[in-house]
Amino acid sequence: MNQKHKERMLTGDRVTGKLHLGHYVGSLQNRVMLQGKYDSYILLADVQALTTHFDRPDSIREHLREVALDYLAVGIDPNQATLFLQSMVPEIAELTVFFSMFVTVNSLRHNPTIKSESKGSSLDELYYGFLGYPVSQAADITFCKASIVPVGDDQLPHLELARKVVRRFNELYRPVFPEPQALISETPRLVGTDGNAKMSKSLGNAIELDITPEQLSYKIRRAVTDPARIRKHDPGHPEVCPIYAYHKVFEPSGAPEIHEACERGSIGCTECKHRLVASLNTLLEPMRERRSRYAGNPRVIDEILMEGTRRAREIARETLSEVREAMGLDYFRLPEED
Amino acid sequence: MNQKHKERMLTGDRVTGKLHLGHYVGSLQNRVMLQGKYDSYILLADVQALTTHFDRPDSIREHLREVALDYLAVGIDPNQATLFLQSMVPEIAELTVFFSMFVTVNSLRHNPTIKSESKGSSLDELYYGFLGYPVSQAADITFCKASIVPVGDDQLPHLELARKVVRRFNELYRPVFPEPQALISETPRLVGTDGNAKMSKSLGNAIELDITPEQLSYKIRRAVTDPARIRKHDPGHPEVCPIYAYHKVFEPSGAPEIHEACERGSIGCTECKHRLVASLNTLLEPMRERRSRYAGNPRVIDEILMEGTRRAREIARETLSEVREAMGLDYFRLPEED
Ligand code: SF4
Ligand code: SF4
Repeated sequence: MNQKHKERMLTGDRVTGKLHLGHYVGSLQNRVMLQGKYDSYILLADVQALTTHFDRPDSIREHLREVALDYLAVGIDPNQATLFLQSMVPEIAELTVFFSMFVTVNSLRHNPTIKSESKGSSLDELYYGFLGYPVSQAADITFCKASIVPVGDDQLPHLELARKVVRRFNELYRPVFPEPQALISETPRLVGTDGNAKMSKSLGNAIELDITPEQLSYKIRRAVTDPARIRKHDPGHPEVCPIYAYHKVFEPSGAPEIHEACERGSIGCTECKHRLVASLNTLLEPMRERRSRYAGNPRVIDEILMEGTRRAREIARETLSEVREAMGLDYFRLPEED
Repeated sequence: MNQKHKERMLTGDRVTGKLHLGHYVGSLQNRVMLQGKYDSYILLADVQALTTHFDRPDSIREHLREVALDYLAVGIDPNQATLFLQSMVPEIAELTVFFSMFVTVNSLRHNPTIKSESKGSSLDELYYGFLGYPVSQAADITFCKASIVPVGDDQLPHLELARKVVRRFNELYRPVFPEPQALISETPRLVGTDGNAKMSKSLGNAIELDITPEQLSYKIRRAVTDPARIRKHDPGHPEVCPIYAYHKVFEPSGAPEIHEACERGSIGCTECKHRLVASLNTLLEPMRERRSRYAGNPRVIDEILMEGTRRAREIARETLSEVREAMGLDYFRLPEED
């Protein structure tokens, strides 16, 4: 397989906790599907995790290998995709600093994602690095000259800003970077087990990828259903039930039958939940196998991350040397090249 | 001479143009005086020059070796002081990114220097990198763990912010950095030849360090004097005359006599200017000699910059490895150390 003739794709996650089914549906599944099609780079964003976790870096360290293990468990193939650590590619920081020179505070401030993520707090309470998040994302994308970036619609404004940064750089200096294209994923956001619109670890309504069969049964047993169904034969409203939402996503072929049976009151919630647990276990079982293989051999995970990081740095160095040349900052050869 | 037992001092200049007598009086003279006392690091801030010159990086490149030559001409001794390029120490960018996580936009916005430098323009028109200037200065100071930073009073707010950054880092993670102390220079700002309160290249009222004797005579001949003196014997007001200001700074022992003679009308402006030219040439002559020695051998300047940069990077790497350890980002050894 020759990665050189494939377009490069960048994806990644802030390292702030273990991944769950929401991540799987929202991006991981897609990455596994695309890893053969594109030359994939997957960023473990430990530096960007600091934007919200600077006062508890331990949690980043703690989750780093877990997230890597989640990737491997879902089927990311380290021979196809390059897994790497943001903090170990200083060229990303250098690009962030270069880009920050020509991005206005205004454009960052009015980025809708920043607006909503800062939850209405005034600009004054923002941290400087948090405000600059899209600048650092532009650096993530450009350090490896990625041309494809899979995103959900909520991330589009960030990518739009990254595209602007790329255009501005190319125009100011020399066309070094391809303009990254969004690959919009069509998967809807996964609801939480409590019925909340978003599955999220911090809300306690997530089904983690490393969940055991016992934990899964317990979690689904406790999940909310249509509150109008008191007795087994009451007609239900599957559209308001997270269990039905999961059926639709994880066993789409059986979903219409569930829908009908629920509405007619011919299936009880207990049975419906049992069926879901079975479907989820079918999905999770191969992940558990891969996980246990890697988990028994933590050295291998480290080696995968180190090898990926080494590859990422190699590309980063090449890109930065082009960037320096384009900006006229290439006065000498770098000492490390001597 | 053992630099290890000396405190480390950081100074530097944005590389935006040749240096002039204002720089000499304001900082260079001081650096030459202190280079034996402290372990001196002198930063050629080409990256920070981008905050205002991102759209003309050629001018940075053009002035880089000129500024280095200015340093060497005034008597900076490359065996005592380490001259280095900001863009070639990526660890400074890494620290900038780390620090940006815990510095609020608010503290940057209310920094008086930012306020006055942005000349009343609203926050919205600011560039993100320009707003973060003090964060990057904190990185300049800390990458080499400098404990002494010579500053003019106008730079004190920046240093105060850098001290805050250092305290916050040490408190959040581990005490890695010494809190940098200001070494306030007592030298007043040098007036321009047009009487403007500030000598500045962009105002066209500067006496550059590489000025020839002929250019100097011409420039001083055209400099403004007390406008009330029309005829030679009119009593003058030396306090409003830039020529007298220069006498005070560059030939302080002779200044009282000039003062008296000017007030009495017993010295003409032409003679007064001749005397100044003589004093300035006495100051500039040894600089011209050093300059011509180095200028005839440009390879040597490159070697000085490369050797200084190599030394700076070595220290930067050590510091960053401590920083990573303090922040818990030291998962693996860096690939380059393998
Ligand atoms: S039968 Fe299934 S879809 Fe209907 S309410 Fe119960 S759990 Fe939800
Ligand atoms: S005599 Fe000297 S100090 Fe007095 S006005 Fe003339 S130039 Fe200035």
